[in-house]
Amino acid sequence: MIIVGERINSTRKPITAALEARDADHIINEARRQWEAGATYLDVNTAMMRAAEPEVMAWVIELIQAELPDALVAIDSADPVAVEAGFKVHKGRPLLNSINGEKQRMDALIPLIREYSPRVIGLTINDGGITQDADSRYRIGTELIELLTKNQVDLDDIFIDPLIFPVSAELQAGNVSLAIMRRLKENYPGVHTICGLSNISFGLPERKLINQVYMILAMGHGLDAAIIDPLDRRMMASITTVNTLLGQDKVCRNYLKAYRSGDLNLDPTTMAAE
Amino acid sequence: MIIVGERINSTRKPITAALEARDADHIINEARRQWEAGATYLDVNTAMMRAAEPEVMAWVIELIQAELPDALVAIDSADPVAVEAGFKVHKGRPLLNSINGEKQRMDALIPLIREYSPRVIGLTINDGGITQDADSRYRIGTELIELLTKNQVDLDDIFIDPLIFPVSAELQAGNVSLAIMRRLKENYPGVHTICGLSNISFGLPERKLINQVYMILAMGHGLDAAIIDPLDRRMMASITTVNTLLGQDKVCRNYLKAYRSGDLNLDPTTMAAE
Repeated sequence: MIIVGERINSTRKPITAALEARDADHIINEARRQWEAGATYLDVNTAMMRAAEPEVMAWVIELIQAELPDALVAIDSADPVAVEAGFKVHKGRPLLNSINGEKQRMDALIPLIREYSPRVIGLTINDGGITQDADSRYRIGTELIELLTKNQVDLDDIFIDPLIFPVSAELQAGNVSLAIMRRLKENYPGVHTICGLSNISFGLPERKLINQVYMILAMGHGLDAAIIDPLDRRMMASITTVNTLLGQDKVCRNYLKAYRSGDLNLDPTTMAAE
Repeated sequence: MIIVGERINSTRKPITAALEARDADHIINEARRQWEAGATYLDVNTAMMRAAEPEVMAWVIELIQAELPDALVAIDSADPVAVEAGFKVHKGRPLLNSINGEKQRMDALIPLIREYSPRVIGLTINDGGITQDADSRYRIGTELIELLTKNQVDLDDIFIDPLIFPVSAELQAGNVSLAIMRRLKENYPGVHTICGLSNISFGLPERKLINQVYMILAMGHGLDAAIIDPLDRRMMASITTVNTLLGQDKVCRNYLKAYRSGDLNLDPTTMAAE
């Protein structure tokens, strides 16, 4: 499972403050905790810095990689200038979060993808807007795959996000996204599927329970990457357990390692403060 | 989701003692708690009473139905005499737990099934023994379905158990059972799949976590009945959540009802003693 740690996002107030103050300690602390919890990529979003978005993006990436030389960043921006600022300073291959099927965005980003060879998240949305229809979103996903592979991106470097809508608003929202994931994995073996989960529980109580259960269902339908908070211990324990149950953990090595580290002990009375 | 409450089983020591002493209060208490927690059927196994198995089976069923007139029993026995003793006293349609593909057992039970019209659990095992092979177990399942439908059992009254083996012993054990469930549901729309879950976690620590996660995965692949302990609040909350996420809970009515009843509050520090 490829985990993109979502915490360094300028829409979160403590992060906005830390970015504005160029508080390196705060950012490094957020990066280190997610990295140690098992994040594969650290998402960095600096959009709320507005005009300074590109400069702050580069600053954060250099900061993280100076402190954690093996860490990779998911460059989370809709602004091609900020994306390129990130690509320029990033060591190793970053993950671009994200492209979609909108022509204008694509035209600006494809040349950067060709030049810097990042891995790429593709959202199943295009100039027609967002659709609730499974077939339409699946088709947008396939068009993104075709376009990216034509531009020298390997299937293994493509992450399609089927998008997830609140089940409180649309009864079939959960099923629709599961079906898209499954179909993409069946028809494009090797491609990755990814999503942010929290939309599914919008409008309902006990959202963490819903997000965790949906993560398990989605992994059962081929989800192999997710944008989550790796400090959510219950979520991480679920992911470890699913990997074992789906035959991806020889002699249950990772499960037993997590058990010995205390990562499967989810009793809040014994859990460290988060 | 059809839930078969597993607690009244003579392999559990407190139940053995209660059955031996004909302790009606103990049995009724176990029945009531499971019923109130949402069990659809109450499993009754009296095999450890040996020669008295049939007599005790009938005693327990009459006891439960006198106290809980709407409750139905899953008659859990390998002995056709005990099965018939149960059928004779049961009001409404019981669930027979279980038949399998062994010729001798089938020959004894089919006449009873024709006479009493129970719903039936079929285990994917036959005279060739137990196999780890997905295709073989699927095929046994289909043979059971064909045989039962030939004997006037509707698809909606058939529950096929794909069997589950420990993932600690066989890396693909989880995947194999998921594939069998999925294939049965696809090829026999209307048939039910059922399983006991606890085998999956045999030999590993934190078994409840594994069982709960596997339940969610299995429901995502078409499991619509399970033999579990309905007093396991975390398991029951997971089931409620999966039903909502899979589009079986209009306007999230059941989820919100469970939330208001406190059934989704899983913090052990606030949970009632179990």
